[in-house]
Amino acid sequence: MSKIRIGIAGYGNLGKGVELAIRQNKDMELVGVFTRRPPESVKLLTAGIPVYPIAEIEKYQDAVDVLIICGGSATDLPEQTPALAKLFNVIDSFDTHARIPEHFANVDAAAKQNGHLAMISLGWDPGLFSLNRVYAESILPNGGTYTFWGKGVSQGHSDAIRRVKGVKRGIQYTCPVQSAMDAVRSGSMPELSTRDKHERVCYVVAEEGADKTQIEQDIKTMKNYFDEYNTTVNFITEEEFDRDHTSLPHGGFVIRSGKTGDGETTTQTIEYSLKLGSNPEFTASVLCAYARALSRLKAEGRTGCMTALDVAPAYLSPMSPDELRAHCL
Amino acid sequence: MSKIRIGIAGYGNLGKGVELAIRQNKDMELVGVFTRRPPESVKLLTAGIPVYPIAEIEKYQDAVDVLIICGGSATDLPEQTPALAKLFNVIDSFDTHARIPEHFANVDAAAKQNGHLAMISLGWDPGLFSLNRVYAESILPNGGTYTFWGKGVSQGHSDAIRRVKGVKRGIQYTCPVQSAMDAVRSGSMPELSTRDKHERVCYVVAEEGADKTQIEQDIKTMKNYFDEYNTTVNFITEEEFDRDHTSLPHGGFVIRSGKTGDGETTTQTIEYSLKLGSNPEFTASVLCAYARALSRLKAEGRTGCMTALDVAPAYLSPMSPDELRAHCL
Repeated sequence: MSKIRIGIAGYGNLGKGVELAIRQNKDMELVGVFTRRPPESVKLLTAGIPVYPIAEIEKYQDAVDVLIICGGSATDLPEQTPALAKLFNVIDSFDTHARIPEHFANVDAAAKQNGHLAMISLGWDPGLFSLNRVYAESILPNGGTYTFWGKGVSQGHSDAIRRVKGVKRGIQYTCPVQSAMDAVRSGSMPELSTRDKHERVCYVVAEEGADKTQIEQDIKTMKNYFDEYNTTVNFITEEEFDRDHTSLPHGGFVIRSGKTGDGETTTQTIEYSLKLGSNPEFTASVLCAYARALSRLKAEGRTGCMTALDVAPAYLSPMSPDELRAHCL
Repeated sequence: MSKIRIGIAGYGNLGKGVELAIRQNKDMELVGVFTRRPPESVKLLTAGIPVYPIAEIEKYQDAVDVLIICGGSATDLPEQTPALAKLFNVIDSFDTHARIPEHFANVDAAAKQNGHLAMISLGWDPGLFSLNRVYAESILPNGGTYTFWGKGVSQGHSDAIRRVKGVKRGIQYTCPVQSAMDAVRSGSMPELSTRDKHERVCYVVAEEGADKTQIEQDIKTMKNYFDEYNTTVNFITEEEFDRDHTSLPHGGFVIRSGKTGDGETTTQTIEYSLKLGSNPEFTASVLCAYARALSRLKAEGRTGCMTALDVAPAYLSPMSPDELRAHCL
C-alpha cells in the first residue's frame, strides 16, 4: 500500500512536531517542508527531506496528498488555509473559537472550488475537547459542561509579560483552581466566574535594577490578560528560567455532570483530560491522525470543509474496521 | 419537525432507563414497549404508553423509527438483534467483547436484507470507552492503553456470591487499584497483571447460623470469578444491605500514555473517565443519543450494521452543524 504523502507549510514548533509525528506513523511519509524563509536557512530534524519556498508551492500539487498548515491563527491561517485549499487537501489548527464559522465558510468554498477536502480547527481545543463536549452534552442533555485549561504555558500571556517595562524574560502558566474542579466533579453544577476557574502564575527574570514591585503591579492589573484573575508573580534568576521553564507543557479538562432517572436525581459524570509534556508535539500528533482520516474520506469522494465533529473515530486509526471491532471495541 | 419514534424491546433496568432518557430528549417520543411478559403485568413509569406482546412486534413496523433492544448479551441479543433488524432499525448494547465480530456479521446481513440500519454494542464499554481507545491510540501510536473499571457493581460476580452456601444477600464491587492507576498516569507504562489492576470487594448478608469463615473461603477461592484477585468479604446486616447497596453505580477509566518528540522522550497522557450513579440509566442515555444518530444516518441512506467507531460525533447532537461549530467547537 502506498504511503500518505504529507507536506508541511510553516516550520515553527508545530511544524517540527508534525515532522516528528510523521515518523511514528508507518503509513505516512514527509515529502517536503514549505517555508517563507530562505529554504537554505531552515534546518530540518530529518536528513534528506527537501525544503521549498512557499511561493512555489503550486508546483508540488501532484506530490502532496495532504498539506498540514502550521501557521498562526491570528493572521496566517485566515489567509493561508483558504488559499492553499484551492491547491491541496489541507489541515489546520485554527483556534480562534469566535471566528471558526467564518473560517469554515471560507475554507469550505475554496476547497469545493477545485474538489479538495479540508479539515480545520484540529488539535485539542478546538479538536479533542470539542468532540468530547459534543459527546457528553448529547448523552447527558440535563447537565453542565466545564472546560479547564492547564497547567500550561499560554504564549499570549507570556508575550504580554515580556512587554512590561523591566522584564527581561517571562513565562505564564494558566492553572485550573482545584476547589473549582472538585465542585464540578461532585455534580453540584456550580456557577463559576472567570476568577473562580483559573489562576495565572508568572515567572519573571527582571532586568538589573528594575523595580520589581512595579513589574508585579503592572502585570496584575493588565486589562484583558490578568485583571480578572488571581495572579501570582515569581521573580527568578535567568539560570532558573533556563533550567525550569523552557518546555511547553499544557493540558486541561472537559467535565460534564448531568442528572438522569425518575425525578432526575442520579448524578452521572463524564471527564476527559490531557496532561501534555509538549503542547505543539501533541497538537501535531492530532493533526497527523486526522491527515489519515482526510486521505480516506477524500478517497470516498468527500470535498469541502470538515471539523473533528464530522469525522467518525474509525477513520483516524491505521487499523481496518474488522481489526478495530476485534481489538478495540 | 416530527419526533423520532422510539420503541423499547425488553423492560428491565435498561429498558426503564431508556424510557426515562427519552423524556430528556425533546426530539424523541416513546411509542411503545414490547415485552415477553403478559403486557398487563408490566407497569411503566410513564402514563399513557402502550405495552405490547413482543410476539406481535412485526405489526408495529410503520410506527417505530428506531427500536432499542434492551435484552441481555448472553442469550437474548445474539438471537433478538438479527431477527429484529429484519423488521426495524435497531440499536443494542451487546457487550460480550469476544463475540462482537460474529454478532456484527449476523446483524449486518439481517439489516441489509430489508434495507435497515443497525447499531450494536453501544453503551460505555463497549461504546464510549471503545471510541476513546481508538482516538487515543490513533493520536499516540507509541504508547500503552489501560482500561480500569469501577468502582462499580458487577452483576455476574454478585450472582456468583449469591450461589455460595450460607449467603442470603450479596453484592460485589469491582474497584481499580489506586497505585496501578497512579503508575499508569505517570507515563511509566507499567506491566500490570489482573491482580495488580483491580480488587474485588464483597458485601454479604449471611443466613442465620451460617459458617462465615467458610463463606469467605468459598468466595475468595472461586475459580474465574475471584481466585485471580485480591478479594475482601465484608459481612453486614440486611438493614445495612438495603440502606447502602441497592443502587447500581459504576464507572471506569481509559488511560493512554505515549511518547512523542525527537528521541521520543516527551510524555503525553490522555484520560477518559466516567463516574456513574446508575449504570443502566447512563447506558440508556448513550443508546438514546445514538438513536438520534441512527435516524439521521438512515435518512442519508445508510444500511447495514455500525458501531460507535463508525459514527461522527456531530450525528449524536440535537444541534445543527452550524450551531455546533459556533457553540461547541
